[in-house]
Amino acid sequence: MIVKSSEKLKKLGTEIFTALGASRDRSSFVASTLVESSLTGHDSHGVVYFVRYSDRIRKGFIDVNADPVKVKETEASALIDGRWGFGQITAMRSVELAVEKARRSVVGAVGAFRCNHIGRLGYYTSWIAKQGFIGMMFANVGHPSVSVYHGLGRVFGTNPFSASVPVKDSDPFLLDYATSVVAEGKVSIARSKHEKIPENWIRDKFGNKTDDPNAMLEGGWLLPFGEHKGYCLQLLVELLGGILTGSRSGLDPENEPPSPNGVFSIAIDPGGFRDRSEFASETRTILKKVRCTPNEPGARILVPGDPEWETREERLRCGIPIPEDSWQQIVQLSRELGIDPEYYS
Amino acid sequence: MIVKSSEKLKKLGTEIFTALGASRDRSSFVASTLVESSLTGHDSHGVVYFVRYSDRIRKGFIDVNADPVKVKETEASALIDGRWGFGQITAMRSVELAVEKARRSVVGAVGAFRCNHIGRLGYYTSWIAKQGFIGMMFANVGHPSVSVYHGLGRVFGTNPFSASVPVKDSDPFLLDYATSVVAEGKVSIARSKHEKIPENWIRDKFGNKTDDPNAMLEGGWLLPFGEHKGYCLQLLVELLGGILTGSRSGLDPENEPPSPNGVFSIAIDPGGFRDRSEFASETRTILKKVRCTPNEPGARILVPGDPEWETREERLRCGIPIPEDSWQQIVQLSRELGIDPEYYS
Repeated sequence: MIVKSSEKLKKLGTEIFTALGASRDRSSFVASTLVESSLTGHDSHGVVYFVRYSDRIRKGFIDVNADPVKVKETEASALIDGRWGFGQITAMRSVELAVEKARRSVVGAVGAFRCNHIGRLGYYTSWIAKQGFIGMMFANVGHPSVSVYHGLGRVFGTNPFSASVPVKDSDPFLLDYATSVVAEGKVSIARSKHEKIPENWIRDKFGNKTDDPNAMLEGGWLLPFGEHKGYCLQLLVELLGGILTGSRSGLDPENEPPSPNGVFSIAIDPGGFRDRSEFASETRTILKKVRCTPNEPGARILVPGDPEWETREERLRCGIPIPEDSWQQIVQLSRELGIDPEYYS
Repeated sequence: MIVKSSEKLKKLGTEIFTALGASRDRSSFVASTLVESSLTGHDSHGVVYFVRYSDRIRKGFIDVNADPVKVKETEASALIDGRWGFGQITAMRSVELAVEKARRSVVGAVGAFRCNHIGRLGYYTSWIAKQGFIGMMFANVGHPSVSVYHGLGRVFGTNPFSASVPVKDSDPFLLDYATSVVAEGKVSIARSKHEKIPENWIRDKFGNKTDDPNAMLEGGWLLPFGEHKGYCLQLLVELLGGILTGSRSGLDPENEPPSPNGVFSIAIDPGGFRDRSEFASETRTILKKVRCTPNEPGARILVPGDPEWETREERLRCGIPIPEDSWQQIVQLSRELGIDPEYYS
């Protein structure tokens, strides 16, 4: 593992995307969302994307200076065309709009299509919560890797769902996960460490149980989490994120651009229902009580968001660990672009 | 098993609640929601509640003629005081209002507190979908029976979540489930049949794995579904259904009334994002394709709602099966109220 500071990584990412033609502002924002994923422990959505996005920019899938535009709007809702710019820019515009609308109408709903990969959903929903609103986001991934319940073969993407709730004087409650048992990145990590995986993560190409992470590369697929219950959520995300916004479904035979997202966001003002401060403070009390529930021997009770915010604290202090080969890819990319990666180390 | 027709059961339920003082309209509506649960195969939320609600009415927990009132309102949102009337009446008023608001504002959000047990959430969300809107409902149950992830002991109720989406010329997509592995009713059914249960359903009072459904009566608890992912959803339902609406949390030491629900409903007009008919028709296409995905040997691929709508067809045709002892309780209750149960058989 190489360890790098988040500040330096943000600067390096900014230089990379700027060198590829994006404005400095856009580059800096996209880089900071990726570093934020690494900071919160979601390495699969973190700085490894410096390289993947660069590849997509070079292939013409990401139009680095495209700005999202509203194509439909009411007091409480909007539909946004992301115009194949950075997914992050469109997702951020979506939640800003959702909050603006919730500020006026208590609730705001915003859909977005023609988004590239938007990264980690929790970035946007926790931003909503930090404005004092409740946030939800459903994002379909038009690149299939997960089967349906009782099905064989890849049907939908990892279709993540996220929700975040403001907590008084504290980091927000943050639910943020793929509707597959695990994100695809966890299988890759096990593969690179030559480790076995639990048998409920994936199936091989014949539909057999397997603990071999290589099976995923050889035509295998991820399973939806929580049997039929997670599967229902996987499908709901497809309908809201994908179909409602007019985005590409996992079922579509198209495969370019490589990882389009359809994004549906909701913001809710707690003040429409009760005193905002009381709500955030009662939420804090509930979460504290949950953390103090008697625990199974050897296990710790966390509430949604705890792992992220704790990892963030630690990585801000001690730096972000990056696997050697991922760092080498970033170094190589930087050199190709005439950027000295050592300067950011 | 005793088998009864849904029409006769509706009439019997109406007579029962009317005899207990509810207006005929209210009685008929509540009875029909319970019979609808039985029709769709959710027997745990069905006609067995004729007896349980009657008991709660007699104990003064349900004020049979109380009407819900709005206590807060904007164009797109409302908060409703259920005034401890029938939970069904308040839940129905909530979704009617949510749809009214979504009709004007594309999205509508309605919270409700002081609700008694509202029954099966899918009744309300699928009603929303039948109006052409997307529905979501989060209901906390202020009566703890489920542990938190890695925790010991009962902390929250079964905290159900439901979502429904209109499908062109077809029954709606319907996600409708407890955030515990199973509803408490499934454990009771295994108990009454002297059957073992899977080891991932409950823990005994010491926190040990068990396949004995009796352990639930002896201080055991249900587990949240899908490990930490279902647990996150369980907590989200508590925050939206319970805390946001100002309802009793599962963590509150109060235990009367016995099964209060806090209810948060959202309705979304697909027309705010794309052509309504196209949306419903594309949803139909996606669901059809999912059903035709290659399946695991011996398994059938269903989409959310299929089990409910298929069971409903069958039970409309062949009648609703009711366990002997449950029917005897209904018979006894009817006789106490001077109603001839044979007349409805």
